[in-house]
Amino acid sequence: MRKTYLMTPGPTPIPESVLAVMSQPIIHHRTPAFQQIYKEVQAGLKEVFQTKQDVLLLASTGTGAMDATVTNLFKKGDTVLTVNAGKFGERWTKICKAYGLTAHELKVEAGRSPSPGQVQAHIAAHPGARAILFQASETSTGARLPTREITELAKKAGILSVCDAITACGVFDLPMDQWGIDALLTGSQKAFMLPPGLAMVALSESAWAANAQSDLPRFYFDFAKERKAIETHQTAWTPAVSLIVGLRESLRIMREEGIPQMFARHARLARATRAGVQALGFEFFAEAPSDAVTSVRLPASGPASDGKKIVKLMRDDLGVTIVGGQDELDGKILRLSHFGYCGDFDVITVIAGLELALTRLGHAVELGRGVGAAMKELSK
Amino acid sequence: MRKTYLMTPGPTPIPESVLAVMSQPIIHHRTPAFQQIYKEVQAGLKEVFQTKQDVLLLASTGTGAMDATVTNLFKKGDTVLTVNAGKFGERWTKICKAYGLTAHELKVEAGRSPSPGQVQAHIAAHPGARAILFQASETSTGARLPTREITELAKKAGILSVCDAITACGVFDLPMDQWGIDALLTGSQKAFMLPPGLAMVALSESAWAANAQSDLPRFYFDFAKERKAIETHQTAWTPAVSLIVGLRESLRIMREEGIPQMFARHARLARATRAGVQALGFEFFAEAPSDAVTSVRLPASGPASDGKKIVKLMRDDLGVTIVGGQDELDGKILRLSHFGYCGDFDVITVIAGLELALTRLGHAVELGRGVGAAMKELSK
Repeated sequence: MRKTYLMTPGPTPIPESVLAVMSQPIIHHRTPAFQQIYKEVQAGLKEVFQTKQDVLLLASTGTGAMDATVTNLFKKGDTVLTVNAGKFGERWTKICKAYGLTAHELKVEAGRSPSPGQVQAHIAAHPGARAILFQASETSTGARLPTREITELAKKAGILSVCDAITACGVFDLPMDQWGIDALLTGSQKAFMLPPGLAMVALSESAWAANAQSDLPRFYFDFAKERKAIETHQTAWTPAVSLIVGLRESLRIMREEGIPQMFARHARLARATRAGVQALGFEFFAEAPSDAVTSVRLPASGPASDGKKIVKLMRDDLGVTIVGGQDELDGKILRLSHFGYCGDFDVITVIAGLELALTRLGHAVELGRGVGAAMKELSK
Repeated sequence: MRKTYLMTPGPTPIPESVLAVMSQPIIHHRTPAFQQIYKEVQAGLKEVFQTKQDVLLLASTGTGAMDATVTNLFKKGDTVLTVNAGKFGERWTKICKAYGLTAHELKVEAGRSPSPGQVQAHIAAHPGARAILFQASETSTGARLPTREITELAKKAGILSVCDAITACGVFDLPMDQWGIDALLTGSQKAFMLPPGLAMVALSESAWAANAQSDLPRFYFDFAKERKAIETHQTAWTPAVSLIVGLRESLRIMREEGIPQMFARHARLARATRAGVQALGFEFFAEAPSDAVTSVRLPASGPASDGKKIVKLMRDDLGVTIVGGQDELDGKILRLSHFGYCGDFDVITVIAGLELALTRLGHAVELGRGVGAAMKELSK
């Protein structure tokens, strides 16, 4: 008997009732039964996205939605601005370049978030740009970016704000219409508590206008075709049926809790995780930590310095799966996730797991110290 | 209590054991547990594809794989040949054109399959072409295309053979390496008995050489990146984890039956379905019927002439979901599927359902006549 716990920023744990509906016999997608589900899912997604716009569903993961957003919004020869606060920001730059766009990148040190001033200067330095592409939450570093401010600056400059909210939408408040975010995209395996394989994108009227002018080559990812299909409660191509069936149940769970309450829970779990980590004497890697994931900076030497070992020990020996850093951060940070199907005892579990792993590695830990601090925060 | 039966050419019914494994708690993809699954899945896919090449897994549906194959094999300005024997052949042409290629289309009347002579003439008429793109089974009409002959002709002409085997791979024999098919692609919701959302593509050495030269813009769909990732039993981006977990079980089922035995079962079920349809006095729409799906030509007048009504009645009143025709064939044909998780009694059910629906619509049917003919074929 081996009981396992998944505390990664995607896939996140899937609620039992979501697994149950997805394990029902599959239905055909060109049927009234599917159309009814799709209609309900549309209504629910609008609530989470906080938009009146259609939310397009693509059979792909989040990177597919990033790719699709670039090819559906821009024209050959366009110049865009990207914000690189980590691996996923860098991905925006790579995608834009892959499609022949000129991408001016604002790069900040890993762990930092760009200040509104930096963003403003970047926009001012490139007057011909058509958009700024950024992350609401940079999952690779655990940093939260100032989405509201970036969006406002973009609006002032008359350029589009394109927000990768893959580990942000449904995690914390990102009122798309109110803030005027022009493109908001996410993936199923994050706050929506589903397996990976379904991406969601919503566009503002300005973004739809850009789509109408866009001439980059595309076929499978075709926003206009998807929008047209929504009129008859369908997708342009065969949809990821089982994930959409699961999404209806996820959305039901989210609405039952209440969208603001869900955000409050994530914030609370994040505070508790941070309290636990801090009580163990660790620093945060992100200067502005995201409520999605807490990144822990490991010491440069000593038994707690090998992040790979900690991840492996927690996962293989204790059954608690967290993730380390990616690429150049590999081994140097830990990332503990606390959103989606996640409650108080999950935070307690991950901090307890971390304490046990550190002890085994010979890093001096007063067992229960981090857990106690987390519990104290949870008791508030 | 409403018991339903799915007899559509994708999604096809999902075996209970596949649903069961997919409803287990999800795992993270950057773990040894996932790598082990991916390794096993690779081995199984090679058996079904009958290839020594890697089989790339993309988080998309089949249309995504078609799109990906075009952008990963060709160069700007390339000329290609397409075979349009229906909606999906037409899709090859559309995709190639979307990416700026010159596509010369060999169009045959819906329901017909191109003869090797026609294909040879088409190849001869366009000496500069780099490839011929076609379907092994054109799902929209139920026609089987002469894949072996097309592939041989392509080889003789020194051009690539690109075979959409979305409703063919795993349905009937398509030995990729033996016949020299250069690109073979399929989707999860067909013979692999999974929900839609996972596509599979394998390339020959010649196709890989073309990939190395290809300069069409792409990012999410990047075959070279996926091939590289397979070396460490990973995918380039987040994979459709739950579908890959399900795929391991589907492949186990397929191997347990035996690949040749599976093909023989599909052929047998196809013969029985055709016998049932014929005994009811109907003609086939496809001159060379595919073993994946039997398309039934409806009479031009009388109570059996309205295909939409028959589909609706069977689905909504009897619980048996089949599909009609698409686009200009809407209402004019029926398509009865008989592959994947499908046995003798499924064929009996669909023929019985058709008889009952026709009776209700006032079309004279001797109840049991079609069923009896199907059973006779199944008893052979």
